[in-house]
Amino acid sequence: MAAASFDVVGIGNAIVDVLAQTNDDFLAMHELVKGAMTLIDEARGEMLYGAMGPGIEISGGSAGNTMAGIAALGGKGAFIGKVRDDQLGKIFRHDIRAAGVAFETTPATDGPTTGRCLVLVTPDAQRTMNTFLGAAVELTPDDLDEEAIRSAQVTYMEGYLWDPPAAKEAFLAAAKIAHGAGRKVSLSLSDPFCVARHHASFLELVSGHVDVLFANEMEICGLYQTKSFEGAVEQVRGHCEIAVLTRGEKGAVVLAGGETHVIEAEPAPDIVDTTGAGDLYAAGFLAGLTRDRPLYECGRMGAIAAAEVISHIGARPETDLAALVRQRLHKA
Amino acid sequence: MAAASFDVVGIGNAIVDVLAQTNDDFLAMHELVKGAMTLIDEARGEMLYGAMGPGIEISGGSAGNTMAGIAALGGKGAFIGKVRDDQLGKIFRHDIRAAGVAFETTPATDGPTTGRCLVLVTPDAQRTMNTFLGAAVELTPDDLDEEAIRSAQVTYMEGYLWDPPAAKEAFLAAAKIAHGAGRKVSLSLSDPFCVARHHASFLELVSGHVDVLFANEMEICGLYQTKSFEGAVEQVRGHCEIAVLTRGEKGAVVLAGGETHVIEAEPAPDIVDTTGAGDLYAAGFLAGLTRDRPLYECGRMGAIAAAEVISHIGARPETDLAALVRQRLHKA
Repeated sequence: MAAASFDVVGIGNAIVDVLAQTNDDFLAMHELVKGAMTLIDEARGEMLYGAMGPGIEISGGSAGNTMAGIAALGGKGAFIGKVRDDQLGKIFRHDIRAAGVAFETTPATDGPTTGRCLVLVTPDAQRTMNTFLGAAVELTPDDLDEEAIRSAQVTYMEGYLWDPPAAKEAFLAAAKIAHGAGRKVSLSLSDPFCVARHHASFLELVSGHVDVLFANEMEICGLYQTKSFEGAVEQVRGHCEIAVLTRGEKGAVVLAGGETHVIEAEPAPDIVDTTGAGDLYAAGFLAGLTRDRPLYECGRMGAIAAAEVISHIGARPETDLAALVRQRLHKA
Repeated sequence: MAAASFDVVGIGNAIVDVLAQTNDDFLAMHELVKGAMTLIDEARGEMLYGAMGPGIEISGGSAGNTMAGIAALGGKGAFIGKVRDDQLGKIFRHDIRAAGVAFETTPATDGPTTGRCLVLVTPDAQRTMNTFLGAAVELTPDDLDEEAIRSAQVTYMEGYLWDPPAAKEAFLAAAKIAHGAGRKVSLSLSDPFCVARHHASFLELVSGHVDVLFANEMEICGLYQTKSFEGAVEQVRGHCEIAVLTRGEKGAVVLAGGETHVIEAEPAPDIVDTTGAGDLYAAGFLAGLTRDRPLYECGRMGAIAAAEVISHIGARPETDLAALVRQRLHKA
């Protein structure tokens, strides 16, 4: 039997999101940093959950969202990440498979529950995330599906993997397998606070192991410890083959060697919840890249996918992204 | 310590909804009856869940939704229903409490998992429900909070309670407690298929134990086994003090003794998901009734609450219903 071959294999923390509407007073009262992803332990999670309003549970996780986006764009993807054998773990597994993504990582049979992220959405559509990693911390190099990684054009990993120690090892092992098979390694810097937590090792990682880098303005400035976006652009240019720097409603800049592509944002008339914007930008870009589309077009595909996901609650696409891209790609 | 007193105590099956978008082909392939609530066992649930698309988990259950609506309208409510001590049970408990509803029923510590309802939403905004009752079948008369029921102006129960045998006993016991304290008993017929399953005993129940009845057109016609809405109207008039008969976009008719109030539907320009329409109609009506509002106004409050819940995914209100009612009540 021939091994399945994939466009993209995503590796990340397997997380179920618990979304609730809130207001700025709630964030202030609980000392939450608006717009950031903060790691919390189980006790803090219980406390915040008890205080917050009624929730909606939707499968999430940064790389998981990206893979759901790849599938919605017609790409062939697999996800590697750790859940527990509990109800939330079954929900995560069902949702990512139902989205069309292969997911075969064995669930943990003991230890912490499936990870969850309390996502507090304010009326300005900003999301403030509080993540209890749970079983995601149990991901180790043993969980890597080497066949899948070797077969995939791109192995995509989220910076958040740098938080659980064993997952960091899995990250490096996956990069080695991918490069050994002549494949590309891609990283999303995930979050400015994540960059701050792991600054030195991220710098090393980006210049040593990453071919395609995704970062937003705050993240890339954090990585190079500069306040100037232009300064960061010049530094990252030599550090990886392709750098995709997103700037929200200002669009994105894609750098590749000497090339610079300026990408317009896709109009998003009714922004409801910005959760997953970066994840879906990466999905659109990688879907284009693995089909050998020109870099400008890859960037536009990212912009279209990101605009869809911010138009509704939840960080995974709700519409046929492939059709949306066909409709929108040449209309910017 | 004085006992809490409530406007409404709701008793129902404690259920977490799993909502997914689907199409008519999927319903046909799995022989699902569009618009109905069908009871399924765990094996059928696993099969359908495996086949359906990515889901969103939101606490539901007919009477649970109604109680969330009562709270959103500023009323004081309690809910009685059975979950298990599992992750979905914790989600149900959190959500109903966070909505402002007292919920103290002890969770089951063994037996089936917390009940769930696979809600398949088609592009026409119709919902087709497949319910695995799970722990909800463990509700018995022992779970009744007699103090709460005695204190409440209205004890509201869903017809779906007639499906699990012990819950039926709990229903009758609750009615006896409420009437013993000089309080009112209210019932929603829930679903035409539920009426068909329990036709004879529902008839007996309505004429013997129910003061305030909620039914839609198909349910009331099913109860009196007539095709004529007008015929059903004449029959129900003598059977209970108040009958609230909803007719979707055609509005509602409220009967009380010789009085007949015709209630206009609230305009609903963008219908997304009709799940919970009847539940929220009951919430609005009972919120008015327990504040001694005129019956016409109670009906309009029901219409306004129902219009809100069908404008988004999920069967519980997402906006401040009290403010919405203040805004809309005199604008029909």
